[in-house]
Amino acid sequence: MITIREIKQMQATSEKYRSEGKKIGFVPTMGFLHEGHLSLIRQMRPLCDILVVSIFVNPTQFAPSEDLEQYPRDFERDEKLCRNENVDIIFYPDSGQMYPAPYATYVHVENLTDTLCGASRPGHFRGVTTIVTKLFHIVKPHLAIFGEKDFQQAVVLKKMVVDLNFDVKIMTGPIIREEDGLAMSSRNKYLTANQRRQATIIYQSLQKAQEMVKAGERNSEVIRKYIIDNINRIPETKIDYVAVVNETTLKPVVQIDHHSVIALAVYIGSTRLIDNVRLNTIR
Amino acid sequence: MITIREIKQMQATSEKYRSEGKKIGFVPTMGFLHEGHLSLIRQMRPLCDILVVSIFVNPTQFAPSEDLEQYPRDFERDEKLCRNENVDIIFYPDSGQMYPAPYATYVHVENLTDTLCGASRPGHFRGVTTIVTKLFHIVKPHLAIFGEKDFQQAVVLKKMVVDLNFDVKIMTGPIIREEDGLAMSSRNKYLTANQRRQATIIYQSLQKAQEMVKAGERNSEVIRKYIIDNINRIPETKIDYVAVVNETTLKPVVQIDHHSVIALAVYIGSTRLIDNVRLNTIR
Repeated sequence: MITIREIKQMQATSEKYRSEGKKIGFVPTMGFLHEGHLSLIRQMRPLCDILVVSIFVNPTQFAPSEDLEQYPRDFERDEKLCRNENVDIIFYPDSGQMYPAPYATYVHVENLTDTLCGASRPGHFRGVTTIVTKLFHIVKPHLAIFGEKDFQQAVVLKKMVVDLNFDVKIMTGPIIREEDGLAMSSRNKYLTANQRRQATIIYQSLQKAQEMVKAGERNSEVIRKYIIDNINRIPETKIDYVAVVNETTLKPVVQIDHHSVIALAVYIGSTRLIDNVRLNTIR
Repeated sequence: MITIREIKQMQATSEKYRSEGKKIGFVPTMGFLHEGHLSLIRQMRPLCDILVVSIFVNPTQFAPSEDLEQYPRDFERDEKLCRNENVDIIFYPDSGQMYPAPYATYVHVENLTDTLCGASRPGHFRGVTTIVTKLFHIVKPHLAIFGEKDFQQAVVLKKMVVDLNFDVKIMTGPIIREEDGLAMSSRNKYLTANQRRQATIIYQSLQKAQEMVKAGERNSEVIRKYIIDNINRIPETKIDYVAVVNETTLKPVVQIDHHSVIALAVYIGSTRLIDNVRLNTIR
């Protein structure tokens, strides 16, 4: 495994592998790897010849008020974890190299980014689509994989890839959860022990909602109200949004069908967590 | 020479040539080729193995009020001209394929696009940077060339390529002029015979301005005023802008130096023409 820190070297390396007919698989991350990331790496490993993981805490997807500075970082630990998963290349650039002043160019996906997390984090998805465009131009992957915890991000990136004709196949990997159901996230680290216990209400509520749908409930407002009331019972929670939306358009749905997803963002103390579940009305 | 109309086929063709170590040169055009385009093709031909010319009248760079519908088109003529220049591939997609509904993704370069043509054509450069991004993802060139008549476009595209880490070398080719000095443009076709004669005032004024600078004039306002007054003497002209700017930042300059460019846009009747000259203060 090698670590590449220079953009030009990464491009030249990928170009060389591509010219040899090697298939490049790519797992973009912000580092501080957990089982969620590792599952994406394991899903990608058998599908490619050269597996590239990028580690870059992307400043343009954080608002000035957000947690860019305290976002957890531990490159040595990440490096070991990648080596254990037979990663071939870590791409680990610094921020000055990725956004040299005066930086001016952004990629924006309209409509899909106005809602859900995009409504409470203006500019967030513009930062995500911009950095992924840059990373795709640097890493030159054939395949890239994103986690389904960031449900809206995956929808937005798939739209970007189609619209801008990126010749990259986009895959997603399932949410990986702690034993008590909490979706794995680097931000879980911010929780106190007490908040960590309270955070389990999120997936408990989503699971109960899934059961209600399985039992026949199709009214999205009934489901939303149940989740909101359930989460609000817990002292340190503050709901950002709870939405039942179409999996492709992200538009709210009235009548739940098998293309519906419940997505939510909830503050536990000052930590904002997201989660989502698909609703299966077919079985 | 082959003509490719399908995006996927163009991508697969370019991918094949790249994997064989062939160098791909790219000349993006809106068709209705004139000597300006042909000079770019001739400049690129010896630098690459596979020369691709795209012909696509890009709707997203036209405002609703502009001349998208009447923009001249003549594919058969373009095809013959390309064959004469030993072009290998014409990429000639249709609009529905390039912008399938609901299209939502745009590339935007800030600051550089607010001024000059960007001020009078809001959204124009967003359309240009978006289509060039798409074409780069489809044609996968090593090298691409743009004409210097579209001075601001070249500056904006170079900035985009640096900011988004496109692994494409950008070149520019000099303005090609008619015998009387008028810069070649597909839009010259809109001029009546009388307007065509009046249009020569544009380059005459720019040449005179260059001479004034060569003779020692360094005050950009003196130069601007000369050009404006000179063009305003001609009955059917209406000045959109005349600016003396830095060649990289596009900011107005007070004191002319060898990084200064005079750029202008002038209506002759209802036809908007652009032109520019570099100012050489060194000799």
